[in-house]
Amino acid sequence: MEALKQRIIEEGKNLGNGILKVDSFINHQVDPSLMDACGIEFARRFANIGATKILTAEISGIAPALMTARHLGLPVVYARKTKPITMPDQVYLTVAPSHTKGRLVELIVSPEYLAGGEKVIIIDDFLASGSTIIGLVRLAQTAGARVAAIGALIEKSFEGGRALLKYLNVPIESLVCITSMDNGQIIFDNC
Amino acid sequence: MEALKQRIIEEGKNLGNGILKVDSFINHQVDPSLMDACGIEFARRFANIGATKILTAEISGIAPALMTARHLGLPVVYARKTKPITMPDQVYLTVAPSHTKGRLVELIVSPEYLAGGEKVIIIDDFLASGSTIIGLVRLAQTAGARVAAIGALIEKSFEGGRALLKYLNVPIESLVCITSMDNGQIIFDNC
Repeated sequence: MEALKQRIIEEGKNLGNGILKVDSFINHQVDPSLMDACGIEFARRFANIGATKILTAEISGIAPALMTARHLGLPVVYARKTKPITMPDQVYLTVAPSHTKGRLVELIVSPEYLAGGEKVIIIDDFLASGSTIIGLVRLAQTAGARVAAIGALIEKSFEGGRALLKYLNVPIESLVCITSMDNGQIIFDNC
Repeated sequence: MEALKQRIIEEGKNLGNGILKVDSFINHQVDPSLMDACGIEFARRFANIGATKILTAEISGIAPALMTARHLGLPVVYARKTKPITMPDQVYLTVAPSHTKGRLVELIVSPEYLAGGEKVIIIDDFLASGSTIIGLVRLAQTAGARVAAIGALIEKSFEGGRALLKYLNVPIESLVCITSMDNGQIIFDNC
């Protein structure tokens, strides 16, 4: 998606170790118009999936997932990383290694909002090692829901997440694909 | 705002101790259409503020803040509760007591995205004791920005937050006001 790619070219920062800083329009400051355009694009690509719900993880997945959900007319559930007191005692919980935090994080969904028979689209900001998305897949499967598609704003193909998700045999769509961040560069190509 | 009030009547749960569970449409599962309608309403009420930015706190503030920002054509910044590795060493940080977590949480904003001279509207899901919003006010003031207005989806007037914010002398708008949650009830009235 050209608008997102251009924004990464203009404002994205390669911090080394494969870390792409997009804090000025996705991860800390958010550009709502760009997120809306990304939501429209995901909704177009996933229009015929027949999904019943969008699933994402707090925090950075919320903006793109919310906009996608809006354009598909679906509710969105975001997995929590800490269990709030409003959640029932019995929850779906999995752990996933966080690349940017350097530790395991919990992903928690209440059974109240993810039910057997649901068809979910997982949306997140990044598809990198795939660990967060695989955690969301496990949560959905534990709930008896089916993952019907996966979407990420930015894929870092050199981290191999797509290969790990291939067994699901569902559409995996990234709006921008980065194939290398070696030597301080940001190289875009098809994933 | 009638649509939000009706949804609270239908799906909100009084868990006792002043805790209102709205996890089915705001705090865990999110209804994007309802959030969009709330964003339109905030944008209408704050159309003449001349704001340059929306400021909120992760996590539950993101959805209403994003939708408000979209309809006002402004960027939104969400204060982080943990400092990501993409943030510079020098940040604006304050602590605020969290009612639902029973402990102090940090609110962190990067100086890159909150500058002196900015005019911010603070948007959050709840205005209760006011502690999170007061924390955001402190962050904005530390950055040299001016708080021009405050908006919350749901105000729990019996927790007194509005009185604590009065000294700012700015518009404080809540879309729904709850004046009592005693005896398992949810009483709506003007704030």
